[in-house]
Amino acid sequence: MSEIKFESIGIIRTSYKTLENMPIQPMGAKGEKAIIELNSKFVDGLKDLEEFSHVTLIYHLHKVKDYKLHVIPFMDTEEHGVFATRSPRRPNAIGISTVRLIRVNDNILHIEDADVLDGTPLLDIKPFFIQFDNRENTKSGWLDRKWDDKHKTLKSDERFKTSIE
Amino acid sequence: MSEIKFESIGIIRTSYKTLENMPIQPMGAKGEKAIIELNSKFVDGLKDLEEFSHVTLIYHLHKVKDYKLHVIPFMDTEEHGVFATRSPRRPNAIGISTVRLIRVNDNILHIEDADVLDGTPLLDIKPFFIQFDNRENTKSGWLDRKWDDKHKTLKSDERFKTSIE
Repeated sequence: MSEIKFESIGIIRTSYKTLENMPIQPMGAKGEKAIIELNSKFVDGLKDLEEFSHVTLIYHLHKVKDYKLHVIPFMDTEEHGVFATRSPRRPNAIGISTVRLIRVNDNILHIEDADVLDGTPLLDIKPFFIQFDNRENTKSGWLDRKWDDKHKTLKSDERFKTSIE
Repeated sequence: MSEIKFESIGIIRTSYKTLENMPIQPMGAKGEKAIIELNSKFVDGLKDLEEFSHVTLIYHLHKVKDYKLHVIPFMDTEEHGVFATRSPRRPNAIGISTVRLIRVNDNILHIEDADVLDGTPLLDIKPFFIQFDNRENTKSGWLDRKWDDKHKTLKSDERFKTSIE
């Protein structure tokens, strides 16, 4: 396998200082305010971004120490292959979250719904566009079966904490 | 900025051998068959994935040589900040595409709609779940204004080729 190097382009600042009780997906962080401190050398790359209501953040899950090929994800009690889950314990610790963009002030992006730890290194910002990014008529295996309204505000539990730290 | 290292977990094999006439988004590659050759040491991580109709691939845009903070994207004739576009010439050359998963045979994933170059190094596979990934009532700035039906089958042009190679 060939090594691929990236650099953090900024830091995501959220109110989630520890892995306990942090949201599992953006819907679990709905309305929570956060900011991105973009490295100021990239500020020119933000031109026209403020016209977008949502952006997809790609970031380094920097607290993940190792990966597991079988995991018991938060929404289930049975093991699944890690690639069939959104568990952070992946071979490459890369996370993606589509968040709400509120406003941009110079190198600071004010966002909402960021389900990430405070201090998370940011790798990329992509504008969200329904025509590119939404899908319809999908099947989602065990997630479809486990989904119900109680999961709409997802927070982590002890199991999640133990499995990362 | 701190350096972050990842390793390719596999290779995406598509019919797009050069950047000319390759699709810009999965909708431009609709129905095109492709495969993922996963490094066999990760095969156990695929358990239960075949029950999903769509997966989001995260990959290295390995032909991108450098980045630009202002780009003229394929769908427009005006410059935008690179973070307000899906241009590959980003500070970290990371691409994401949600593709159709047809079947899984051991370490080979048969997929459709992959808008990536043959030989692209794969970084992660995430299961697509409408409840996590779709958004409604979004605003998408210049993309909303430029969008019309003629862009539903997006192919690259000379400008795109020049801007990457």
